Amino acid sequence: MDMKQIIEQITADKKEAGGIKQVYYAACGGSYGAFYPAKTFLEKEAKDIKVGLYNSNEFVHNTPNAFGENSVLVVASHKGNTPETVKAAELGKKAGVPVIALTWIEDSPITEYADYVVKYTFGENKDIAGEKTIQALMTAVEILKQTEGYGNYDKFLDGVSRIDRIVKQACKHVANRALTFARNHKDDSVIYTMASGAGYGAAYMESICIFMEMQWINSASIHSGEYFHGPFEITDAEIPFVIQVSEGSTRALDERALSFLNRYAKRVEVLDAKDLGLSTIDSSVVDYFNHSLFNNVYPVYNQALAVEREHPLTTRRYMWKVEY
Amino acid sequence: MDMKQIIEQITADKKEAGGIKQVYYAACGGSYGAFYPAKTFLEKEAKDIKVGLYNSNEFVHNTPNAFGENSVLVVASHKGNTPETVKAAELGKKAGVPVIALTWIEDSPITEYADYVVKYTFGENKDIAGEKTIQALMTAVEILKQTEGYGNYDKFLDGVSRIDRIVKQACKHVANRALTFARNHKDDSVIYTMASGAGYGAAYMESICIFMEMQWINSASIHSGEYFHGPFEITDAEIPFVIQVSEGSTRALDERALSFLNRYAKRVEVLDAKDLGLSTIDSSVVDYFNHSLFNNVYPVYNQALAVEREHPLTTRRYMWKVEY
Repeated sequence: MDMKQIIEQITADKKEAGGIKQVYYAACGGSYGAFYPAKTFLEKEAKDIKVGLYNSNEFVHNTPNAFGENSVLVVASHKGNTPETVKAAELGKKAGVPVIALTWIEDSPITEYADYVVKYTFGENKDIAGEKTIQALMTAVEILKQTEGYGNYDKFLDGVSRIDRIVKQACKHVANRALTFARNHKDDSVIYTMASGAGYGAAYMESICIFMEMQWINSASIHSGEYFHGPFEITDAEIPFVIQVSEGSTRALDERALSFLNRYAKRVEVLDAKDLGLSTIDSSVVDYFNHSLFNNVYPVYNQALAVEREHPLTTRRYMWKVEY
Repeated sequence: MDMKQIIEQITADKKEAGGIKQVYYAACGGSYGAFYPAKTFLEKEAKDIKVGLYNSNEFVHNTPNAFGENSVLVVASHKGNTPETVKAAELGKKAGVPVIALTWIEDSPITEYADYVVKYTFGENKDIAGEKTIQALMTAVEILKQTEGYGNYDKFLDGVSRIDRIVKQACKHVANRALTFARNHKDDSVIYTMASGAGYGAAYMESICIFMEMQWINSASIHSGEYFHGPFEITDAEIPFVIQVSEGSTRALDERALSFLNRYAKRVEVLDAKDLGLSTIDSSVVDYFNHSLFNNVYPVYNQALAVEREHPLTTRRYMWKVEY
């Protein structure tokens, strides 16, 4: 079943009860970040549907009162075995809420509690249009289309059809810059990421999953609009930033932050969605593709940084090694 | 007019159009953080009402489609002159959406676009029950009560009546610990905060407004549930954490993170809401008071830290000094 059919079936099942009224996304870490565009999509585009994005353990301990007969729960776990996310799915199953599980491994613990299992693409040369972020977005897009309606649906699908080519071109485009970045940042103990809009999740993931988790570098993901209300005071010639200049509604926020950085910071890596080819996607839907672009361009930097620092991306001191 | 009356009037005005269906909070930095409990309250408690929390500039550039005749906009600006927040209020005014402005200065630019101006308490010995965070919470509580109904309303008001005394006791309780913390952290270049649930906004504010803005110390606010999915890999004997152990639904998340810190970190400052007296507030509403407690205990630490570092909390290099 594709996502359209999954949502059609859920919609049909819920018809008597009044249809889909709330959509909850629950996941941890990188999967939480991957849900950010879907959450942002419904927050921006939907008139009546409520949307919530939760860390899985927060969702389990602090389940919203609305969670019930008019809800859909979407969970994601890369190997399908993240304990908190499996627990969130179980909670959905027991409440009779349809659970859509996005995972890379179809035969995994989470599938026990999933009504619908969607395997996403992953790894070298994956089709970007099939990866977790886009699959999550498609849950949001199909739900909106099949409930309130979504006028830009065809443009959105056109965007999906373009994203793979854009990303692969962009990765080539940054290859040399990534090597320079890696050389210039190999001894840094802190690197900030910055972003706004639907692409913010990619900055969050780069910060917590790569810099902190895989490279043990201190980091935070700063919202480009919030930057001027506190964080910008740490700016100086030494502190490094990676800034996502997005394409779409919130570009002005990123450009403002970049303009400040260009005056007072000296070590700024700019990932500009326009420069990286995202503008061929229609402006009415382009916001939601920033994440997929940035999130897939970062790995070019990450590989180079890991080599330069002689700290493989697979190195862990706690994850999967100790009890927690 | 008190908040009850303000919401009664808005509800009456909107009756023909179908009542209040969406509540949007827009602010920047510390005021953004102060809205976190209100947003979390509606996210958890409301069945149908949609809630959104936005950085003001993001709200202006990426206004949700639902913003209109069934919406209420709540903005906050300490001096009533934050340009992005004034702009957000203007956008509300022009769209015919009722705007409630929370501010400390009643005669300020934002009041031009506000239908209702609420002055909150501030400064030494302020009444905590009247401050920004609680006023914001009261918008959410009154809206829920007057639309869908809110069964714990009286318990919530009882909590409001208790918070001032709890906070003032807690501040005395941490006085000595704050001095020790300041001595032990005066040379640190990075300090993390950690939290979950409705109190997370306090950790965000401490991180961006105090450590980054007022002390130029690198920082990030880590969600205690997300900690195990990336950030915990930066944990070692040297990296300092301030962790909020909240009272209420998500306490288990904070306790789990603390238990890990107690094994692998050596420099951990624990702010425990139970130890700080929050448990006298009814368990059905206590979640929403964590923010006010932590947010008002931090200043005891901040004052001590500023003295020890000889870096006054008023020192800035960019804010209000250069164009941005």
